[in-house]
Amino acid sequence: MPVTSLPAVDPVCAMSPRSAIMRHYSRIRAHSLTLAAPLSAEDQCVQSMPDASPTKWHLAHTTWFFEAIVLGPHSHRYTPYDTRYFYLFNSYYETLGPRHPRPQRGLLTRPTLPEIHAYRQHVDAAMQHFIENCGNDMWANSGPLVMLGLHHEQQHQELLLTDILHALSCNPLWPAYQPIPGTDLLSRSRAAPEPVPELKWLETPGGIVPIGHDAESEPGFAFDNESPRHDVLLAPYRLANRLVTCGEYANFIADGGYREPRLWLSEGWAAVQAGGWQAPAYWVDSEAGGAAEQDWHVFGLHGLLPMNNADPVCQLSFYEAAAYAEWSGARLPTEFEWEAAVRRPGVEQAMGYAWQWTRSSYDPYPGFRAQKGAIGEYNGKFMVGQLVLRGSSCATPAGHARVTYRNFFPPPARWQFSGLRLAKDLGC
Amino acid sequence: MPVTSLPAVDPVCAMSPRSAIMRHYSRIRAHSLTLAAPLSAEDQCVQSMPDASPTKWHLAHTTWFFEAIVLGPHSHRYTPYDTRYFYLFNSYYETLGPRHPRPQRGLLTRPTLPEIHAYRQHVDAAMQHFIENCGNDMWANSGPLVMLGLHHEQQHQELLLTDILHALSCNPLWPAYQPIPGTDLLSRSRAAPEPVPELKWLETPGGIVPIGHDAESEPGFAFDNESPRHDVLLAPYRLANRLVTCGEYANFIADGGYREPRLWLSEGWAAVQAGGWQAPAYWVDSEAGGAAEQDWHVFGLHGLLPMNNADPVCQLSFYEAAAYAEWSGARLPTEFEWEAAVRRPGVEQAMGYAWQWTRSSYDPYPGFRAQKGAIGEYNGKFMVGQLVLRGSSCATPAGHARVTYRNFFPPPARWQFSGLRLAKDLGC
Amino acid sequence: MPVTSLPAVDPVCAMSPRSAIMRHYSRIRAHSLTLAAPLSAEDQCVQSMPDASPTKWHLAHTTWFFEAIVLGPHSHRYTPYDTRYFYLFNSYYETLGPRHPRPQRGLLTRPTLPEIHAYRQHVDAAMQHFIENCGNDMWANSGPLVMLGLHHEQQHQELLLTDILHALSCNPLWPAYQPIPGTDLLSRSRAAPEPVPELKWLETPGGIVPIGHDAESEPGFAFDNESPRHDVLLAPYRLANRLVTCGEYANFIADGGYREPRLWLSEGWAAVQAGGWQAPAYWVDSEAGGAAEQDWHVFGLHGLLPMNNADPVCQLSFYEAAAYAEWSGARLPTEFEWEAAVRRPGVEQAMGYAWQWTRSSYDPYPGFRAQKGAIGEYNGKFMVGQLVLRGSSCATPAGHARVTYRNFFPPPARWQFSGLRLAKDLGC
Amino acid sequence: MPVTSLPAVDPVCAMSPRSAIMRHYSRIRAHSLTLAAPLSAEDQCVQSMPDASPTKWHLAHTTWFFEAIVLGPHSHRYTPYDTRYFYLFNSYYETLGPRHPRPQRGLLTRPTLPEIHAYRQHVDAAMQHFIENCGNDMWANSGPLVMLGLHHEQQHQELLLTDILHALSCNPLWPAYQPIPGTDLLSRSRAAPEPVPELKWLETPGGIVPIGHDAESEPGFAFDNESPRHDVLLAPYRLANRLVTCGEYANFIADGGYREPRLWLSEGWAAVQAGGWQAPAYWVDSEAGGAAEQDWHVFGLHGLLPMNNADPVCQLSFYEAAAYAEWSGARLPTEFEWEAAVRRPGVEQAMGYAWQWTRSSYDPYPGFRAQKGAIGEYNGKFMVGQLVLRGSSCATPAGHARVTYRNFFPPPARWQFSGLRLAKDLGC
Repeated sequence: MPVTSLPAVDPVCAMSPRSAIMRHYSRIRAHSLTLAAPLSAEDQCVQSMPDASPTKWHLAHTTWFFEAIVLGPHSHRYTPYDTRYFYLFNSYYETLGPRHPRPQRGLLTRPTLPEIHAYRQHVDAAMQHFIENCGNDMWANSGPLVMLGLHHEQQHQELLLTDILHALSCNPLWPAYQPIPGTDLLSRSRAAPEPVPELKWLETPGGIVPIGHDAESEPGFAFDNESPRHDVLLAPYRLANRLVTCGEYANFIADGGYREPRLWLSEGWAAVQAGGWQAPAYWVDSEAGGAAEQDWHVFGLHGLLPMNNADPVCQLSFYEAAAYAEWSGARLPTEFEWEAAVRRPGVEQAMGYAWQWTRSSYDPYPGFRAQKGAIGEYNGKFMVGQLVLRGSSCATPAGHARVTYRNFFPPPARWQFSGLRLAKDLGC
Repeated sequence: MPVTSLPAVDPVCAMSPRSAIMRHYSRIRAHSLTLAAPLSAEDQCVQSMPDASPTKWHLAHTTWFFEAIVLGPHSHRYTPYDTRYFYLFNSYYETLGPRHPRPQRGLLTRPTLPEIHAYRQHVDAAMQHFIENCGNDMWANSGPLVMLGLHHEQQHQELLLTDILHALSCNPLWPAYQPIPGTDLLSRSRAAPEPVPELKWLETPGGIVPIGHDAESEPGFAFDNESPRHDVLLAPYRLANRLVTCGEYANFIADGGYREPRLWLSEGWAAVQAGGWQAPAYWVDSEAGGAAEQDWHVFGLHGLLPMNNADPVCQLSFYEAAAYAEWSGARLPTEFEWEAAVRRPGVEQAMGYAWQWTRSSYDPYPGFRAQKGAIGEYNGKFMVGQLVLRGSSCATPAGHARVTYRNFFPPPARWQFSGLRLAKDLGC
Repeated sequence: MPVTSLPAVDPVCAMSPRSAIMRHYSRIRAHSLTLAAPLSAEDQCVQSMPDASPTKWHLAHTTWFFEAIVLGPHSHRYTPYDTRYFYLFNSYYETLGPRHPRPQRGLLTRPTLPEIHAYRQHVDAAMQHFIENCGNDMWANSGPLVMLGLHHEQQHQELLLTDILHALSCNPLWPAYQPIPGTDLLSRSRAAPEPVPELKWLETPGGIVPIGHDAESEPGFAFDNESPRHDVLLAPYRLANRLVTCGEYANFIADGGYREPRLWLSEGWAAVQAGGWQAPAYWVDSEAGGAAEQDWHVFGLHGLLPMNNADPVCQLSFYEAAAYAEWSGARLPTEFEWEAAVRRPGVEQAMGYAWQWTRSSYDPYPGFRAQKGAIGEYNGKFMVGQLVLRGSSCATPAGHARVTYRNFFPPPARWQFSGLRLAKDLGC
Repeated sequence: MPVTSLPAVDPVCAMSPRSAIMRHYSRIRAHSLTLAAPLSAEDQCVQSMPDASPTKWHLAHTTWFFEAIVLGPHSHRYTPYDTRYFYLFNSYYETLGPRHPRPQRGLLTRPTLPEIHAYRQHVDAAMQHFIENCGNDMWANSGPLVMLGLHHEQQHQELLLTDILHALSCNPLWPAYQPIPGTDLLSRSRAAPEPVPELKWLETPGGIVPIGHDAESEPGFAFDNESPRHDVLLAPYRLANRLVTCGEYANFIADGGYREPRLWLSEGWAAVQAGGWQAPAYWVDSEAGGAAEQDWHVFGLHGLLPMNNADPVCQLSFYEAAAYAEWSGARLPTEFEWEAAVRRPGVEQAMGYAWQWTRSSYDPYPGFRAQKGAIGEYNGKFMVGQLVLRGSSCATPAGHARVTYRNFFPPPARWQFSGLRLAKDLGC
């Protein structure tokens, strides 16, 4: 099952000594276990909806990735830990054979968590041997795949957090992933509430702007969907310097935002009615059915806490982000407007707070072609029916995101740390 | 939340010293934990379909029953372990307030398993104090409820096994609940395969026969659905002395039984087609798609083992039992025919092998009235759309069943230890 | 595709001259067209739910029955009108080959209504020739099938009315099948409202009673599910002399009957909640959301009319009938109690008002065996998951029903003219 | 229910005498009836899936549009034909009140077809009076709405054809909308098969190109979603001079295109598997299950006819169009590439053959803002989850489409006359 060579999209890999790569590998792999540590074996097994995966599955699948993409095709001496895992922990790679049905991942009480830990150790030992000892030609081909595997694991680190948060949100006891004091598992601590920056509209002149990752000028890893770099013509526009806050969003709710169809896209209004949406996914009104005033609490990784007005709103679907923008008399930026503005000074909260829905469908960049083989399935085959989110969130591992990063989710998705930043045409 | 008094359906309780009841209580409660012991915390949390419940939930719900039916209404000094558990672990008692949705029981990773163990200990301690110390008047009212709770727990002990077996059957690794050597958790050991008895047709004369539990002549516990005892007029009939075997059922399959609509009830044929049924629920053909001969294995509590021709077939739906009977030129007995024949000599495998589908819908006995209050919801409200099964299975706790016992499941249910025994009209 | 001989269940047929049979045939066939006459081609094409069929389909299927059961197997000279109709208009006879999916009957805009009329004429002409000219031996075999076909057509005449009533009930314009003046299409005219009889409880002694059709003593047609006649042992009981009225049922609603789970079977309560049931299927509260008093209107074949207190309530599911009985402190009779009582004097409204739900599941009578071949599929294969209704309704063709007739529907069915009569144990 | 004024997007209207507008109105309104004429009342009532509407509903809804958008708000003397029609025939305008559920349009056997014809005549008479007699100020506001109503009706004329074709395709008799000889109802006659043009790749230089409707330089009607005209920067590319043919698509099928997941977008592959897709929606293999060679027939408005190799393939979903492009080593053009190329010479089959899926999601143009009031719901609220199709089809009314026209459908939609044209990057 050979995987054809990956274009050298990762100069860091090419330039770094293998010992540095190995340290990087160990650090990132260890972080996954750190994130899982506060969770019991039961917590790590549960799957609360087909879109989410169990913690244990994330731990195993990221390991499978190194086995299926690096070790299997490139290491002749590698002995699989358990060949049945090829089937159990493949996510969606048609090229790599059949796989366990996604909605049934939560039924896999076996292998047990200790067995998954042993699987990780087995693969890590083999990876260490491979990284340290494989020939240079082999490394030229497989080194970029190792880096891809690490970025892949970082993506799953964020999903691990959003998926377990969804599972915990289904529990009427509102259990916390982590009590407040130890906030070090998130990239940004919530302990010290920050003042909300004043809202400013940053004017951007438009014109022809470069979009996408440029391997020449921006050494470092990027996913294939960020390429090719290409020019886009933009009209002048204004972008908000910061994200929309919970306090602002509460005003939208109080103003009847969830009851006024004119603010919503047609699909969005249907979702509001079918799902009985009245607030972001994890907002709870402690006065519901009672007093006139709403008293919002927000469920997060630290449990159910009183809403903080200054926090960026998140756990929004694209529909809600678009309806809020409509209500506020503004609009969502395109992903091109976002990227062009963020390359300029003045934009705050670009990274590390909340993914920002854009008004751009997740289409291929001009000249994009999926790579051959399994890794070609990584991004390209999802390029329909989804919207682009830019930036990164409080749950994104440190150092994972960048200004050209294109995250994507279907428009009704609400279980991510997804918020919004407003834009306006210049004349508005 | 008072529960009105239960008619003294349990003379055992009335006649036994409290210390004996207390020993009985401890023994039955401990058995639930013994059954759960081979399972990891992950295993005990999973729910593989809405009809099944997690092991942990069974452990908690049976405890809730004592809290909600005995301690809460009758013990003034009782302090609940956690009042939120009233909501989490109520199964279907509308009288006792709202409850966690059944299909979401598997999402309850919290309370954790150790917390459930602590909950059991808390209630057991309170129950011990109550049993040993409550006044005699109180005991006259509540003693029968204690006995009901223990029989209730025994029902859940069987469900615990059938539910976890279903969950394990969804795992492509076919994990065993318990390796063969230790077979003591089941009421009948599988270790020593028994020879299959020769099939004989026992002639029964019919006439007016008494049906149902008679508190006078049969002291001991019985559920309300086994009363009132009443007379039924039967035509003469013949009943098979033993259950249908796996080997016999394999002949039905090999003869095209699952492909011939004429053998099936209309709903049954629809189920065959919609579910792609080709064999009992846990039968696996190791030669599927390959050789001409089928090579059946059967998944059970000891794992995936080669089919034993002499074993009673089980994990059948009512539809399959009825189609087999049609194919064999016989029919299913009514529950009255079953009970009348089992009271006579000659019937083998009546108890402890497999529940036996009857041709009787689960209707109320003449004169049956549900009791007032929560315990009135125990049986009566399910008396539509279900079929009666008689006998008991290898997973039924020792001493739980009796000749008047009426088990019931909807006709498509396949995850129980449910098989069949044939009957014929006298002239056939 | 020969159909094996039908036991001579129809002495009428054996004893009547062929010319009388032919007149009977013509009269019943013409009545179907009379019932369809008030409907436009559009009305006759629509299917409002999978359980209901278009008028046009009823007209074609009843014709197909004579073609597939009588002419095809027995008449060598018969030329089918269009062989594709074998597929289009088979309802559920697996023995007779594949068939058009039931939920898609409403998509058959072709053949057009005039084509269906031509199909009927073609088959009627062939049937006339067959009845008048076939040999006596042939007639001995096929005459009973002709009678079966006519009783089959009468069943569909009632379904034609209940199905089109459901379709019209889905139209916000509430169109009437037939304005009030011409009421002759129903077996009972509604024009002259009758006084509601005083409620009396008829005492019946119980004992051994004969149940089912007896070909010896009751010459005339009966379906196979009414046989064999057999003895049933009944305890003494009381039966209401008349049906429950709309006025009485409105009291149940006003008393919160649809909001009190304790009154309902478990499946019934689930249906109430899932369907948002608040009244019988075609009851409309003109004051809904407004005034305190409910102002019921009832949609029927004559359109939306003010509720008449004295009318028997109908369009009830079994669940509603059972809940009403529970609320009223009584119960539903078994089908045996119904039949035994109706054979005695004093029972009013037994026939021609509303089918009466009984507390009996639709199980086979002792000794029942389905016949061989296609007609064996007529009744036996539905004997699970349904409840028996006795009597007949205002939509039942005159002369169709009898005291041993067993109608059956699944417990949630609400689109029939189905009501209830109460029973009580003797001591209650 | 006032509708705020429409910007004068229709200079034709402004410049034309009212008598010319009135002739235009009459001609377009009459054409709808002409299209419905071959269909029986039954045909015109049926709804074969929620996405499709009955012919009769199209006839009524287009009439409702004039009533709700023009006459109701602007004509004081107008008396509605039946106020209940406001509810029945509103399609999706939240601004204009509640409406009949879309999936139940096929249940509306009443109003009958003659009543709908009378409704059309009533509104046409009122429209004639309004067009000929309203004041000039009123006309300045409402004239553009009249033109919008006519373009709206033309859109429904195409849907009328595609929807009835879907309904007829569900009938196992494969009835033809119109026998071949009379082909005048389609914009292009199929009678004379045309030779397929040789495939050429037209090189286009890219650069900054104007996209969208320009009211200044292109007088005439356009929908709001075609504006504002704006500049887009394109890389050089090549566009096929003609559409993909049925013969070419049959090669894709024969090469296993529907069995190779690597060719498909992830959602597309899921649709292939869930729907059992093996060919375009209306392709029928007369040799299915039999001979080795496939013998394709294609169901269309003229019935089931042998596939013509040279015909443009249509009834494709976006997924199939994209998979075909991938298989052929090319790609779909963006809507901007399509528009820029079609403005240049050399492009054949741009209009009147089949709508052409582009690789562009249906996003708003920069600066697009939905209009206020009901007409603002016309296009903007659907701008998510859909793909743009360009050109027009054989079912598009003559004169309706234009080079800036943006049609849109969800990616799985297959019941339109939707095909594809290939594109390539310049270096490929």
